[in-house]
Amino acid sequence: MNTATSESFCQSGPVKSNAVLVDGMYLNGPTLDIRAAEKFVQEALTLILDEGVRKTADVREKVCDWHPPEELKQMLDLDLKENGETHAKILQRCRDAIRYSVKTGHPRFFNQLYAGLDPYSLVGRLLTETINPSLYTYEVAPVFVLTEEAVLKKMIEFLGWEEGGDGIFSPGGSVSNMYAVNVARYHCCPDIKEQGLSAMPRLVLFTSKECHYSVAKAAGFLGIGTKNVYVVSSDQRGKMIPAELEKQVLRAKAEGAQPFMVNATSGTTVLGAFDPLEEIADICERHKLWLHVDACWGGGALLSRKHRHLLQGIQRANSVAWNPHKMLMAGLQCCAFMVRDKTGLLQRCHSARASYLFQRDKFYDISYDTGDKSIQCSRKPDAFKFWLMWKAVGTHGLEERVNRAVAMARYLAEEIKKREGFRLLMEPEYANVCFWYIPPSLRKMPENREFWDKIHKVAPVIKERMMKKGSMMVGYQPHGDRANFFRQIVISPQVSREDMDFVLNEIEELGKDL
Amino acid sequence: MNTATSESFCQSGPVKSNAVLVDGMYLNGPTLDIRAAEKFVQEALTLILDEGVRKTADVREKVCDWHPPEELKQMLDLDLKENGETHAKILQRCRDAIRYSVKTGHPRFFNQLYAGLDPYSLVGRLLTETINPSLYTYEVAPVFVLTEEAVLKKMIEFLGWEEGGDGIFSPGGSVSNMYAVNVARYHCCPDIKEQGLSAMPRLVLFTSKECHYSVAKAAGFLGIGTKNVYVVSSDQRGKMIPAELEKQVLRAKAEGAQPFMVNATSGTTVLGAFDPLEEIADICERHKLWLHVDACWGGGALLSRKHRHLLQGIQRANSVAWNPHKMLMAGLQCCAFMVRDKTGLLQRCHSARASYLFQRDKFYDISYDTGDKSIQCSRKPDAFKFWLMWKAVGTHGLEERVNRAVAMARYLAEEIKKREGFRLLMEPEYANVCFWYIPPSLRKMPENREFWDKIHKVAPVIKERMMKKGSMMVGYQPHGDRANFFRQIVISPQVSREDMDFVLNEIEELGKDL
Repeated sequence: MNTATSESFCQSGPVKSNAVLVDGMYLNGPTLDIRAAEKFVQEALTLILDEGVRKTADVREKVCDWHPPEELKQMLDLDLKENGETHAKILQRCRDAIRYSVKTGHPRFFNQLYAGLDPYSLVGRLLTETINPSLYTYEVAPVFVLTEEAVLKKMIEFLGWEEGGDGIFSPGGSVSNMYAVNVARYHCCPDIKEQGLSAMPRLVLFTSKECHYSVAKAAGFLGIGTKNVYVVSSDQRGKMIPAELEKQVLRAKAEGAQPFMVNATSGTTVLGAFDPLEEIADICERHKLWLHVDACWGGGALLSRKHRHLLQGIQRANSVAWNPHKMLMAGLQCCAFMVRDKTGLLQRCHSARASYLFQRDKFYDISYDTGDKSIQCSRKPDAFKFWLMWKAVGTHGLEERVNRAVAMARYLAEEIKKREGFRLLMEPEYANVCFWYIPPSLRKMPENREFWDKIHKVAPVIKERMMKKGSMMVGYQPHGDRANFFRQIVISPQVSREDMDFVLNEIEELGKDL
Repeated sequence: MNTATSESFCQSGPVKSNAVLVDGMYLNGPTLDIRAAEKFVQEALTLILDEGVRKTADVREKVCDWHPPEELKQMLDLDLKENGETHAKILQRCRDAIRYSVKTGHPRFFNQLYAGLDPYSLVGRLLTETINPSLYTYEVAPVFVLTEEAVLKKMIEFLGWEEGGDGIFSPGGSVSNMYAVNVARYHCCPDIKEQGLSAMPRLVLFTSKECHYSVAKAAGFLGIGTKNVYVVSSDQRGKMIPAELEKQVLRAKAEGAQPFMVNATSGTTVLGAFDPLEEIADICERHKLWLHVDACWGGGALLSRKHRHLLQGIQRANSVAWNPHKMLMAGLQCCAFMVRDKTGLLQRCHSARASYLFQRDKFYDISYDTGDKSIQCSRKPDAFKFWLMWKAVGTHGLEERVNRAVAMARYLAEEIKKREGFRLLMEPEYANVCFWYIPPSLRKMPENREFWDKIHKVAPVIKERMMKKGSMMVGYQPHGDRANFFRQIVISPQVSREDMDFVLNEIEELGKDL
């Protein structure tokens, strides 16, 4: 009956004898021909795997076929119209979408804190997209409720919480950090959930200036106010200075405010720094503050016997955010928020007890209806892909990846030290390698304000050139009073030592005339 | 080098001559064999399409192969171990995951406000899962930034906002409603972002008692307090009573509180009711209140020339939440939050201006770096699958689906009225059909308290029986002082008129002895 689509899976044809006319529509059998649909999906998949997996892994292919927004808009013909398009046209759209996208799985994509393509996780994702479950109750998502539970249990083991804990997957580390602020606040003043903040004392939380910007977003969103995030100084390596934290806590108290939480970071976004958790935990204990650890990026190190010392003290945290979609390559999104509490705090803090969804008179154990711990209603089964990948490669396989990524960063840092015109900001402890490139024209200059102003303009130009060439993607940023520098991130086992050499050669090549 | 995995894609072999030893690891070429990986993914996909698409569409297959939590845990062998598993074992895990999952694409899954499987949207999802982009900047997600913009523009057109607007996709309608509360609050008192609520007057928002529970969750999470959600009475059909709204607004003002927002619902969760938007908008204008419309479920009707009258007045809303993953079958999640404001309110309200991500010195038009409008950092490209599906079926195709779903609901309602032992709660306006089943043993009883107490126990037992049999899934719930009733939702074009007859026959069959 759908006459609008040039080529649909509609089984319209003549009206069958058993059809019923309702409200102007003939109703009988299904209008979707599932076999034709399956054939089309299969065809599209062949294309997606070819363009999106095989070609993406090929260093000779571009990381991105770059076009500026207004131009790309025209090329993609984005407008949505009355009538549908043919399958050939839709397949061409898929091909174009891949072609003009950034290949985050390309071995020379080093731009974010995630990269690469794990085939097992990918299979997990394709499975859940096909099944299309929502994770609020056991009734509608039995497998995904249980795999989430199993993954959280194992992650909690790696946090060293011997008594166990509780947790939930969330759509992003920023949301996990919001959970932390809300749970810490509820723990401190449970009345706020009902009464709100308007009659409450001013609540203050503490974090280092190197923390992720989501802490400020959380304070704004949750009604705490961004000014009530007290920023603690960091040392040269980007680690929070415990004595400065204590000063800020005392300052807040002297002002008559109510301190309630410290956010420590394990693996800062830019420098990859790890805050000293044991000393921070001591201060939290002394002042009865909730300790949240944002280990979204650094949490992966917990799987490495060689590097887990970076998070020493995390066993004392009250809550932790950890994103396996970053270092562990589980695919976006895969973000766990965990609390050491075992009294149902997470549930009490967020529950609304909707009677249409969380019925009390169900026939099974409703403690498996975990959705009311969440601020979401529909929720994707983000733990499953990680569970499947972990099953496939084992803890040893994950550990090996982390060790290799950190070793790769170490290799790059050593090469930078050897090369003229490259300068390391600091020795990496983890997988962030931060460095400046100094073009030949500036190498003899005295390192004064003018020098750094010029250096500041180098990285943006090199970035523009690499994007337009499509050869690789590396991020850059200013940082405090430091001029723009590159931040190179290594994660994927598809990245080779030769790619590290390529990065330095390519930067030199793209920037030597500056 | 990964010796832990029984069967991995690792190209370990002998150490190559150009390898470098760093930190105990030999580094040379990639350790992932992408061709072997692609082959594995292809193999898994064949299985997923067969089990997850073809079989799922077959009414002779079970909607769910049900097992209680503790039993299923044992069957799935969930523990994560040191060593990896063989590919054969991983494929078996995929098969099991599908087998024991609820098939939300099955023609007899009527349990939630989403269902069915659209092949075009599925292809869009498989594509983005493969590409694995994150949607914060144009630089890393050019195609997905532009498709999100195109979809929002078109959806805003259907809202009737002639001057346009702004928007963002979010991970769920609940999060969209949180956005609404935060933007409305910021609009009313922009200082709250920085200063927080502690020194502010008590803010109050209004919603009907039929609204989604996420409004209460938002009030708790955002520090407003659940008690400051003033609940407005609804009429027998579940629609907000405008006069009652005005009473509550006056009450809040008399108490010295500050009213700032009304949440109206277009398509309530249980009854499928549409609040009278024009009259509510009049009251909002009179009292200068932000009008948010939660059209997560009902928004789909905007695409139908026959049914869009249900949302008459939505053109006057200040913000709207609308989930195309529900009636329009775009796949979880696909949730738009839109504001009529065009001055950058959404950006100002949520931005944190992270300098490592939203650099000001980029070489392209950074107004396309839309991520700072969001409370998330990493964000999935949820608009793309909807865009691709819309391209494939056209506006006409989407309209036809909505019309057919509503006609199917109408058919079911008429059948219910004809059958002994079935009783409709009310005539459906949309796709929610709410009804009681009265077993033969109760049909002669006077309809007193005892009668309704008995009726209350009927639906849970029938639900248990249908789950264990796997024949279909229909939700039930109590509602106010109404005893448990069934709520049947029709969405998918794979559902046939015969499936409607089946639902009634099956309920009778499962419940006739009660």
